[in-house]
Amino acid sequence: MKSHTIYLTKSVPARMDFVNITSDVAKAVAESGVKEGLCLVNAMHITASVFINDDEPGLHEDYKRWLESLAPFDPGRERYHHNRTGEDNGDAHHKRQIMGREVVVAITKGKLDFGPWEQIFYGEFDGRRSKRILIKVIGE
Amino acid sequence: MKSHTIYLTKSVPARMDFVNITSDVAKAVAESGVKEGLCLVNAMHITASVFINDDEPGLHEDYKRWLESLAPFDPGRERYHHNRTGEDNGDAHHKRQIMGREVVVAITKGKLDFGPWEQIFYGEFDGRRSKRILIKVIGE
Amino acid sequence: MKSHTIYLTKSVPARMDFVNITSDVAKAVAESGVKEGLCLVNAMHITASVFINDDEPGLHEDYKRWLESLAPFDPGRERYHHNRTGEDNGDAHHKRQIMGREVVVAITKGKLDFGPWEQIFYGEFDGRRSKRILIKVIGE
Repeated sequence: MKSHTIYLTKSVPARMDFVNITSDVAKAVAESGVKEGLCLVNAMHITASVFINDDEPGLHEDYKRWLESLAPFDPGRERYHHNRTGEDNGDAHHKRQIMGREVVVAITKGKLDFGPWEQIFYGEFDGRRSKRILIKVIGE
Repeated sequence: MKSHTIYLTKSVPARMDFVNITSDVAKAVAESGVKEGLCLVNAMHITASVFINDDEPGLHEDYKRWLESLAPFDPGRERYHHNRTGEDNGDAHHKRQIMGREVVVAITKGKLDFGPWEQIFYGEFDGRRSKRILIKVIGE
Repeated sequence: MKSHTIYLTKSVPARMDFVNITSDVAKAVAESGVKEGLCLVNAMHITASVFINDDEPGLHEDYKRWLESLAPFDPGRERYHHNRTGEDNGDAHHKRQIMGREVVVAITKGKLDFGPWEQIFYGEFDGRRSKRILIKVIGE
């Protein structure tokens, strides 16, 4: 069994935004030499997500408004008790649960085995600082 | 390490519905010859989900009403900017994020290692056309 | 390829609560002897979750209130048709979909490859009885 581990670092200028990391993941798969296996991609921070969906700016705007309606940014200490720790990112911990921590993608014949529109995104909900993403490839 | 890859095709007559695919996945695991390993099952389309829950029609009705309340179908271009591309399925991209893209299931002693009520479902949110589901088994 | 399978049993006194199971998972990884691989952790019941987030009591209170607002406990048979089966846990099946069934964690150099704040939680939404959690480690 082969394995390959890559840590990406992303610094997103906005509080909330989505970054297409598909080419980073495809590169890690190619480097691994794995022809048949699995690829895990996860946010290493708990106010961020990795998810698969469409690379379409209108959809990303929709996601932002929708997540804001489900878990609004609010730096006060009433809506989010988490902010009583001195943080202001209670909302980001909720948004991340909707969008998910990780994806697991099949590797077939040496490539990410994707449907026609699948793209991998890093979802940032408390940005403006560097955070890490883990890519782990295992297989043969 | 062994691996085995299967593509299912499902065409769901309704816009939104859930299809039990547990037997398809169990068959793929049996064919693989894997005794100890992992099985990934994911929607290959971004307006569909694979998830694990109960095979109970009342619950599925509940899920449909709940998802409709969280992300209503609306073919207009105001609620979902995604529909400005000419699509009418903005809601489906949101529903899929709630229900998830994929499941990873343990294989133990040659079988899906399930709790008493676990069943695997394909969740369709923009149906009436053929879509694919990936099953990837790895292990020994 | 090595594999290792552990079943945890948890009985949570409250209807809804979160239990940190990180040390249980770390122990299973150590026992497995796997240095590079993947670790799946999933709830075996469909009214419970396994998720990764912060071990901070204020955040857990926030999650409870938020989940209650998204899918309120209601033992009646109108809001949740699922309760027409004689159950009263329709809400729990919904809460579990928000928080997720499983996590997949990378194992690197024999350890869970975690960011600074990542902790693994068992999320119970219909407690007061014993339920099982599966830990499956594969790798080399």
